[in-house]
Amino acid sequence: MQLLKDRILADGKVLPGNILKVGSFLNHQMDIDLLNEIGKEFAHRFAGVRVDRILTIEASGIAIACIAAQYFKVPVVFAKKAKSKNLSGETLVTTVKSYTHNASYDVEVAREYLPSGDSVLIIDDFLANGCALEGLVSLVEAAGALVAGAGIVIEKGFQEGGKRLRERGFRVESLAIIDRMTDSGTLEFRGE
Amino acid sequence: MQLLKDRILADGKVLPGNILKVGSFLNHQMDIDLLNEIGKEFAHRFAGVRVDRILTIEASGIAIACIAAQYFKVPVVFAKKAKSKNLSGETLVTTVKSYTHNASYDVEVAREYLPSGDSVLIIDDFLANGCALEGLVSLVEAAGALVAGAGIVIEKGFQEGGKRLRERGFRVESLAIIDRMTDSGTLEFRGE
Repeated sequence: MQLLKDRILADGKVLPGNILKVGSFLNHQMDIDLLNEIGKEFAHRFAGVRVDRILTIEASGIAIACIAAQYFKVPVVFAKKAKSKNLSGETLVTTVKSYTHNASYDVEVAREYLPSGDSVLIIDDFLANGCALEGLVSLVEAAGALVAGAGIVIEKGFQEGGKRLRERGFRVESLAIIDRMTDSGTLEFRGE
Repeated sequence: MQLLKDRILADGKVLPGNILKVGSFLNHQMDIDLLNEIGKEFAHRFAGVRVDRILTIEASGIAIACIAAQYFKVPVVFAKKAKSKNLSGETLVTTVKSYTHNASYDVEVAREYLPSGDSVLIIDDFLANGCALEGLVSLVEAAGALVAGAGIVIEKGFQEGGKRLRERGFRVESLAIIDRMTDSGTLEFRGE
């Protein structure tokens, strides 16, 4: 998605350690016009795919998922960072490892908002090692629902997450895939 | 806002201890059509008021703020729950007391995304004791920006937050104000 790549090049900040900051337009301050273009592009890429609801994860996936949902005309549910394990059966819980914060955390979603048999599109801002996305996939599977695919804004193609998910047979659509980042600030996108 | 009040009566769940659960349509699973009507109503109520950006707080304010922003044509920034105090000056931090979780937590926003002189509309899902809203007001004031007002979806009018903010001179527009809740599940809305 050229508009997105241009914006990443113009306003993204590359920091040492393969960190890309896009807080000026995507996940802290949010450019709603850009989010609408992103939502339209997801709808275009998943045209013809059955999508009954969108699942995302707090906090930075929520804005993207909700704006995109307007083009799919479906509800959104977001996985919440859990305060504690809930074993009541009313909540589905999974553990996500965060490399950024070098810690693990639980995320949960109410079972009633992830109905069995629904076809669920997962949307998130970033895909790198894939831990968050795999956690969301496991929630969908635990609910007895189907993964329609994953819509990702920015994929770090030099990390293993996208490759691993695609090898498992999931359709992962990333609007910008970065194949190389250098500490000096160079970005190299994968050709479409 | 009658549509919202009807929805709260139909799908909200009142639990003992003045807890109102609206996770089926507002802040866990999200009905995007309803969020659009809420956004339009905020735009109607703040018509003629200068709004340069919308500020909200993660996680449950983000969806409402982003959908509403489409009617104001402004960017959104959300205050993040902070991992640790950041005293670098590049981040504005404030402490919010949570009665729900009986704890305090810090929220932060990058100073560059809250420019001095901007007129900032604060949007959130709930207003009860007002601690979150007062925290957001203090971030706006620390930035040297102006509070255009606060747009709240559901206000618990029997708690003090709304009253205290209005007495300080802030314009608080709540789309549904609940004046009474009983453990047996009765809700009484304030007349408009």
